[in-house]
Amino acid sequence: MNKQLIFKKRPVGMPASDTWSLESNSIPDLKDGEVLIQHHYISLDPAMRGWMNDKKSYIPPIAINDVMRSGSIGKVVKVNNHPTYKVGDCLTGWGGVQQYVATNGDNWYKVDDTLAPMPMYIATLGMPGMTAYFGILEVGKIKEGDIVLVSGAAGAVGSVVGQIAKIKGCTVIGIAGGKEKCDYLINDLGFDAAIDYKSENIYSALKEKCPKGVDVFFDNVGGEILNAALLKLRMHARVVICGAISQYNNTEKVQGPSNYMSLLVNRATMQGMVVMDYAKDYGTAAQEMGMWMQQGKLKSTLAMYNGIENFHETFTRLFTGDKKGKLVLKVIE
Amino acid sequence: MNKQLIFKKRPVGMPASDTWSLESNSIPDLKDGEVLIQHHYISLDPAMRGWMNDKKSYIPPIAINDVMRSGSIGKVVKVNNHPTYKVGDCLTGWGGVQQYVATNGDNWYKVDDTLAPMPMYIATLGMPGMTAYFGILEVGKIKEGDIVLVSGAAGAVGSVVGQIAKIKGCTVIGIAGGKEKCDYLINDLGFDAAIDYKSENIYSALKEKCPKGVDVFFDNVGGEILNAALLKLRMHARVVICGAISQYNNTEKVQGPSNYMSLLVNRATMQGMVVMDYAKDYGTAAQEMGMWMQQGKLKSTLAMYNGIENFHETFTRLFTGDKKGKLVLKVIE
Repeated sequence: MNKQLIFKKRPVGMPASDTWSLESNSIPDLKDGEVLIQHHYISLDPAMRGWMNDKKSYIPPIAINDVMRSGSIGKVVKVNNHPTYKVGDCLTGWGGVQQYVATNGDNWYKVDDTLAPMPMYIATLGMPGMTAYFGILEVGKIKEGDIVLVSGAAGAVGSVVGQIAKIKGCTVIGIAGGKEKCDYLINDLGFDAAIDYKSENIYSALKEKCPKGVDVFFDNVGGEILNAALLKLRMHARVVICGAISQYNNTEKVQGPSNYMSLLVNRATMQGMVVMDYAKDYGTAAQEMGMWMQQGKLKSTLAMYNGIENFHETFTRLFTGDKKGKLVLKVIE
Repeated sequence: MNKQLIFKKRPVGMPASDTWSLESNSIPDLKDGEVLIQHHYISLDPAMRGWMNDKKSYIPPIAINDVMRSGSIGKVVKVNNHPTYKVGDCLTGWGGVQQYVATNGDNWYKVDDTLAPMPMYIATLGMPGMTAYFGILEVGKIKEGDIVLVSGAAGAVGSVVGQIAKIKGCTVIGIAGGKEKCDYLINDLGFDAAIDYKSENIYSALKEKCPKGVDVFFDNVGGEILNAALLKLRMHARVVICGAISQYNNTEKVQGPSNYMSLLVNRATMQGMVVMDYAKDYGTAAQEMGMWMQQGKLKSTLAMYNGIENFHETFTRLFTGDKKGKLVLKVIE
């Protein structure tokens, strides 16, 4: 049987468990030219919260009664006359929260799971890593000597952003929640400084830890942290808008950055990004990041949980912050 | 005597008349290498409100007991051994709200008042015109066929922004307050459409008048208009942050744009600008705009008032919107 997580109800605020229902359905039959993929791991990402809203965005919302959308990785277990893929191939794509998926292979990528463990291809070598890579290099346009501030710094994207900035010769300050995460940023990932937004006042902490201001702010969280960071912009600074996790479960209006006029004072730029725009260059980026990983310059932490039936509890960790690194759910039994 | 408007008290909210005091002082003596300029016209601009706040910005705040800072234009009436300027030269610079100023000529520019009337050099051929020119071309990066939305469209900057966009082959929609200004935009300045924010709901008006969205939003006003415009961004849109006049007299927190995540959805850019950064290219810009004016493609409306003693009442018109085009105060008696 194929356990599938079905999207039943658009949540208001933090999704409750009745947002989805777990169903056991038969494993799909293959049409001509299709392969059957058995999922090993599902990627859990903050963006999934946005896809549940019935609102114009960069992709259509998930439809009610559809399988919950997600990134995924697994292996081909059956083939019906497919031109490229064969049994045993490891593929990553948008398979959704289910144990099996049938596909003609469009928008799936074959990866080599002997070079890196499978979950890595939905983490640093997958969407979050690509987001970090293109966000900080192409949108943030970092150069040696820049002062780079990253929010959500212990997360799947932020941790990679900060490490890439260090590789490129920047000074890096990370914002994260809790002492353990802050220690991890400095001791394990080589950040120059860390701010614990849960125990420190963000305005005074930024004053202390970014006395010269910041050239690039890479924002994953929005809200008061974005607002405070805007006051620290240096001339011609770049603000990369990658996400706003602090606002995703808001039942009230999103908090707009009241300090946005700092963009004028400092001739600064605030720019949004969506990783899919860089799809044609994923290969090159994965190669370079793979090399950094082999050289020990780029570390990756997986927050791995087990069992499709634990999806709701695991998903909630994205917003409570109760995890470190890339959140992954193992769904193969 | 030299009538001078002295800055006495930092205002909270809309400046009251006791923000300044009008004093009659003696005309300054000239040091070696200085000229004495008799002011004819003072430029009144929204940015002046920001300079009164005791806050880090792109230039230092005006000091208490200093002459109120402003752009100005006048004629040299006395020279003490100046290498370049002679009596009768017409100079424009930052002379402040006073009738006479002594200067060594640094940061003053000589203009030819036989080619254009004097006030034009503090209007379309001066700071507001330069702001419009570099803002829409360099920051907005307009190209033929773009849909351009301008707020404060009947003002000194906005009216020029819209006309330059028309010259460059764009579709232009202006936002202004009141039917008279909206008619002026369409009938006199050739805008394609106008939105009267005082009588129309900005969200539904934008839906109706920008059905395809906007490629460039040039913002002079901030607040709810900025927020509404963000929802209309097309892919890779540019938002030029030139000012936020709706917020300058706020006694509460500035309204941040809660729809800023539209920058992400639409891979858009929001960028601030300060005209002084383009000083080295003012000459080229003035030449091109002068040509457009001669060709009748670029029209300029002056809202001219008279008498330094009427400064407060005239200045207030910037914020009530009770004027059309560039606000100028004649101070020569």
